[in-house]
Amino acid sequence: MSVRPRLDTEAQLIKRIQRLSSRFAPSRPRPFLSIGDDAAAFKNATNSLTLVSTDALVERIHFDLKYFTPEDVGWKALAVNLSDIAAMGGRPLYFTTSLALPKDKNSRWTERLYQGMLQLAEKVKVCLIGGDTCSSPGGIFLDLTIIGEVNPSQILTRQGAHPGDVLFVTGELGCAAIGLEVLRDHSKLAKRFRKETRRHLRPEPRSDIGRFLASRRYVSAMIDISDGLSTDLHHLCEQSQVGAVIDATEVPLAHVSQKAGSSLSKSLLDYALRGGEDYELLFTVAPEVRTRIPKSIGGVLIREIGQITAESGCWINQEERRRKLLPSGFDHFAR
Amino acid sequence: MSVRPRLDTEAQLIKRIQRLSSRFAPSRPRPFLSIGDDAAAFKNATNSLTLVSTDALVERIHFDLKYFTPEDVGWKALAVNLSDIAAMGGRPLYFTTSLALPKDKNSRWTERLYQGMLQLAEKVKVCLIGGDTCSSPGGIFLDLTIIGEVNPSQILTRQGAHPGDVLFVTGELGCAAIGLEVLRDHSKLAKRFRKETRRHLRPEPRSDIGRFLASRRYVSAMIDISDGLSTDLHHLCEQSQVGAVIDATEVPLAHVSQKAGSSLSKSLLDYALRGGEDYELLFTVAPEVRTRIPKSIGGVLIREIGQITAESGCWINQEERRRKLLPSGFDHFAR
Repeated sequence: MSVRPRLDTEAQLIKRIQRLSSRFAPSRPRPFLSIGDDAAAFKNATNSLTLVSTDALVERIHFDLKYFTPEDVGWKALAVNLSDIAAMGGRPLYFTTSLALPKDKNSRWTERLYQGMLQLAEKVKVCLIGGDTCSSPGGIFLDLTIIGEVNPSQILTRQGAHPGDVLFVTGELGCAAIGLEVLRDHSKLAKRFRKETRRHLRPEPRSDIGRFLASRRYVSAMIDISDGLSTDLHHLCEQSQVGAVIDATEVPLAHVSQKAGSSLSKSLLDYALRGGEDYELLFTVAPEVRTRIPKSIGGVLIREIGQITAESGCWINQEERRRKLLPSGFDHFAR
Repeated sequence: MSVRPRLDTEAQLIKRIQRLSSRFAPSRPRPFLSIGDDAAAFKNATNSLTLVSTDALVERIHFDLKYFTPEDVGWKALAVNLSDIAAMGGRPLYFTTSLALPKDKNSRWTERLYQGMLQLAEKVKVCLIGGDTCSSPGGIFLDLTIIGEVNPSQILTRQGAHPGDVLFVTGELGCAAIGLEVLRDHSKLAKRFRKETRRHLRPEPRSDIGRFLASRRYVSAMIDISDGLSTDLHHLCEQSQVGAVIDATEVPLAHVSQKAGSSLSKSLLDYALRGGEDYELLFTVAPEVRTRIPKSIGGVLIREIGQITAESGCWINQEERRRKLLPSGFDHFAR
């Protein structure tokens, strides 16, 4: 494979992406008009609400090419956006990309990025419908906007939690943060932490779980955990104007052996509370329907971790003490 | 006004933008759910097509802070996206922003950027419904995604031009490119070229004209001129699988005095053909309805500049010779 001295022109690059996209594109949500015009166009289902969310990945802030392949970058950019639609109980349909690329990245590199992205797109049946490409004088900047739909009676927001509601969370927390630490600081251990590093590089959005929960209508509020449990629990509580108390022993931790865990800098609970990018779902249900929540959905465990309170503020019960839980997860500005 | 040493946290910044946005937000297209949840949500008009377009502004590629105020950056980012919706004959409704910001930009700077953007948003009645903010290790990256709607029977694409159709263009071409050259190379002349520099800093999208033309249904194809007339004419012709010939004497040039023009590096026709970022509309109509096109719409002149041909390729008639018109406008990768 030859490394070409410079990028294609913008027009050539768009054609390549268009070709690649038509090869991958799932046939279901075919838009009226896709890549190649001034805008994409699609028809909405009658009576549905359209959902829109935007999330960007910036090189050296969100990913490091020392351990991210181009395919990983593409996959992750779409995954974090799918997670937002999942957290609303929505069905993802279409997405656009905006890519600013330094001159040292050739067209093969870009194609690999789109391949990773379109691999996930095919899996969850979303369709790339347009975008923008330009050069970057700094690092890579990749912004995605995702469009989904939801039945208005099923939409799940951060605002519906009531005092007495029970808090649930999907999956295991802290894995992605452990994976990041291993990739960054203990690269020799990467094999032993394969599951955790993969969670950082290729997160699995909980699209099916989000839609399942929305369709059953027993969830009062939901958010995806992108900034760490402690931070996102605060987000949910603020929007619902409530507080919460969680039980440390119930928080689902990463499955790491004691020996492997000893090479990490923090406790597994610390990663679970304050590590970011797990993209699990945190949701609340009224106490009378708590027993209807399955123990797992599609192989992903669902765990009851606490309760919503009338007083504002978040607390954690740990070793017979109740301590204030501060929002101290991931903040991209604080780095 | 004190310059704060560092940025707010992400959450504080989002709240500031939310406050600012609610102050500016036009009341008409109020969404079901706006900034502050995992995704925004809105209801579509029955039977309309949803339009989506994304365009990014990257510091040192699309703008230079030597002569762009933060308000200019915000205005322009929205303007270039509005232009894409105008080119489809659509009505712009909502937009999201994704902003990556270096640490030396404080919250006042960011607020000014959003003020410029929301000033234009209010004017054209579009509503900011969400977005993403993070830090940037390089320059500023600002990506916008705009959502609009159009009656399916009125949508205008690049694909409908037929041999024999007449080519029209709005406004004057080359102004923005002249403005850029003045700002970059002849800053002392900026006062004399105030109109041109403003066209580079604060382009006026042709939203009303686009919708007017779509509603009259006599336009066969349309594109906005973002990369220069020569390049965008090629785009339109390629998509419609036709060719075109334009008349050099009919191309509407910038109104610059001979004396002022002598300080510029190129001829006014060169700027018009190859200068980018005019954001005027280029469209085609069947010859039998050409007389129905008004001479101006809302004070903006509309000029007939040529004709669509069956043979592919674009040509220009100039000084009694027919010359090949190459697509040689603005390509962000070619810089």
